[in-house]
Amino acid sequence: MASPVNPPRGMRDFLPADKARREFVLGVIRRVYASHGFDEIETPVVEDSARLNSGLGGDNEKLGYAVLKRGLTLDDFRSAESALDLADLGLRFDLTVPLARFYASHRAELPSVFRSIQLAPVWRAERPQKGRYRQFVQCDIDIIGEPSALAEVELLVATSATLDALGLVGCSIRINDRRLLTSMLEALGFPADEHASALITIDKLDKVGVQGVTDELSDRGFSDTAVGELAAFLSGYGARTIDEKRATVDAITSALPAGVDAVVIGELAALADAVVASGIDRDLLEFDPFLVRGMGYYTGAIFEVAHPDFGYALGGGGRYDGMIGRFLGTDVPATGFSLGFERIVDLVELPETETQDAVVLLHDDVDFATLAALKTALIARGARVRLARRPRNAKSLLEQLAASGFTQFASVTAETRTVDDLELKPIR
Amino acid sequence: MASPVNPPRGMRDFLPADKARREFVLGVIRRVYASHGFDEIETPVVEDSARLNSGLGGDNEKLGYAVLKRGLTLDDFRSAESALDLADLGLRFDLTVPLARFYASHRAELPSVFRSIQLAPVWRAERPQKGRYRQFVQCDIDIIGEPSALAEVELLVATSATLDALGLVGCSIRINDRRLLTSMLEALGFPADEHASALITIDKLDKVGVQGVTDELSDRGFSDTAVGELAAFLSGYGARTIDEKRATVDAITSALPAGVDAVVIGELAALADAVVASGIDRDLLEFDPFLVRGMGYYTGAIFEVAHPDFGYALGGGGRYDGMIGRFLGTDVPATGFSLGFERIVDLVELPETETQDAVVLLHDDVDFATLAALKTALIARGARVRLARRPRNAKSLLEQLAASGFTQFASVTAETRTVDDLELKPIR
Repeated sequence: MASPVNPPRGMRDFLPADKARREFVLGVIRRVYASHGFDEIETPVVEDSARLNSGLGGDNEKLGYAVLKRGLTLDDFRSAESALDLADLGLRFDLTVPLARFYASHRAELPSVFRSIQLAPVWRAERPQKGRYRQFVQCDIDIIGEPSALAEVELLVATSATLDALGLVGCSIRINDRRLLTSMLEALGFPADEHASALITIDKLDKVGVQGVTDELSDRGFSDTAVGELAAFLSGYGARTIDEKRATVDAITSALPAGVDAVVIGELAALADAVVASGIDRDLLEFDPFLVRGMGYYTGAIFEVAHPDFGYALGGGGRYDGMIGRFLGTDVPATGFSLGFERIVDLVELPETETQDAVVLLHDDVDFATLAALKTALIARGARVRLARRPRNAKSLLEQLAASGFTQFASVTAETRTVDDLELKPIR
Repeated sequence: MASPVNPPRGMRDFLPADKARREFVLGVIRRVYASHGFDEIETPVVEDSARLNSGLGGDNEKLGYAVLKRGLTLDDFRSAESALDLADLGLRFDLTVPLARFYASHRAELPSVFRSIQLAPVWRAERPQKGRYRQFVQCDIDIIGEPSALAEVELLVATSATLDALGLVGCSIRINDRRLLTSMLEALGFPADEHASALITIDKLDKVGVQGVTDELSDRGFSDTAVGELAAFLSGYGARTIDEKRATVDAITSALPAGVDAVVIGELAALADAVVASGIDRDLLEFDPFLVRGMGYYTGAIFEVAHPDFGYALGGGGRYDGMIGRFLGTDVPATGFSLGFERIVDLVELPETETQDAVVLLHDDVDFATLAALKTALIARGARVRLARRPRNAKSLLEQLAASGFTQFASVTAETRTVDDLELKPIR
């Protein structure tokens, strides 16, 4: 069977160098988030189909991979009205729906304020394209049970520390609040039942510009007055540094006819002050009064990590108070922040220093007992050891192994008895 | 929707303490295998359905979870003759079939002898029971491209070092060779085309005893002479230490009418000598002339890790030369060893020493900026820090947090300004 042997469409294998890079980055993220008091958990990669399709996943539900029930018969196929009749499980498309299910299962065993870390793959059957994969890792932290903005502060500080630890310089975190957007739309005369729809258009600001947004809103029948006032805003207030935050907020407040929520602005300002008090570079934070974020479940503060070199976000999150409690039938305050691992992993520079000796033992036909004893002796001294039969072109092999982090080599011959007989030489 | 909120049947959530234990054990395994010159790789959790059902997975193929094609119509359901018509992907049921596919995809990019590590979950729709799960982690190392028993030596030494590093004392590794079994069955008069079937029965020796095996073989119509000679063997030679290996082999050789392969015995002896030369405790290795191992693809040496406290194997492996090259259409020598992570993780004792300070900051309504600054200052000193609103019963909260590894606490009040104002006290 010499058929094509690629991984499934849109999915990837990771060779040793890639896998090492991924584990290194995951290790840094895991360590920093743990330092900030978060606890790692894990859920199965599949969840019950009904739960995945309960409406909490937004558009991602349509991208789900469904898992067939076991033991189906021809009759089952004949009588099926939709895929959901044949599937009882699905691969998770995010880590938030599983977290809501996990929290409902284990609430009694968890602290009253639960800070979770999830570093795990998710699956979406999107059209594959550069940088977009059908299996990809998300790095989520969530704080469940904390109603105050202290949760947002902890999320932002922990995320900023993680970006620092990964050496990702030049990132900014844009901040806004869904309630502020709502107040603004209200004040500008957008009808309440059209807010969600207007926000979908405003969310495209980065891509289509002010003209694009106002054109689309006009086309969709919003009043000229409302659209015109919004256009004035959009032109006037781009992303601001945290130092300009209050001025911006004041400008919005005074410019709006009425109704912007002073409480929300106060919270946002306190949040920003606390983040700055924790020693984070002032330039990291930007107040962006037009940041929307895609998911419909956000109810308060929203964040997005941007990097000047990239036209896409490296992560984002916000407060989503209505959702975690859905499977419990009760309200539970919640905030979360998700880092786009697949984008970040390519940006991180691995540290050059190998902390461990890495030795290649080049050998011909030497008895196995000698090779095994030599290898064990070197490992006992702290080295990583690779046996390699001496090829015709040892230079080329050693170059390959240098690329895998091996730093020294020694030749084993029929005369070699103990590790003291080895002459270790640097590779290159 | 207050429906039941359990994870899918037979699958598990991991709460923080469990997850930490799992990551610790995985970290040890990863580190030791890497020291022994193995390279970690990763493949997608799903593979093409046709590949998973190509016959390499043995009985496990029947336990596969199938993933529905996307965009199926009613017509597709009506015309489907089997689940395979509706599914294009499946969750992997082992790490060996994906490794064969990976090797076929990437052979040109890999060293000529490739030593792989895979630490990853697999899925089998087995009837759930105690200690058996539908999603579970396997820890596989494989050496591809090495035809000599040097591969077996490296696998056994690396596995033994891993068991040591995990503190799993008292384990033994039983060794046999499929070719020896075949020679024995031949010599005893079992027809060649019935060997596989006879081995399935002999594999039950540990469970049903000598009488059970001979009864089953007789019932299945094997000749009384053959069954009788086998029974004599089974009664005479149980598992032996490595020191008794040669005597046992000699006994088998002299007792058999004819045909036992001297080359195989020589290889097995050399393998055992090399393992012992690498400093492994002699008692670890046992030659077991009746060890079979379940999978049909083994072609040479086979191993199994046993622990005296448990009636099941903690891992196993062997040489399977015919399989890895199947997707390439060429023969590639291969050996592998798989540790049963789910069984091992429960046996490992975590080290008691917390290397990191872990501090709880108990607070009332203190401004967020102060809390954020205090937390950051403690983290900068190397601590893991958890904020916790002071509850009525602080003692009970601190006890919970002590169980999560927190060792110190301090109270934050409205008067606290800097970290120097904190009075850190040990918990308990």
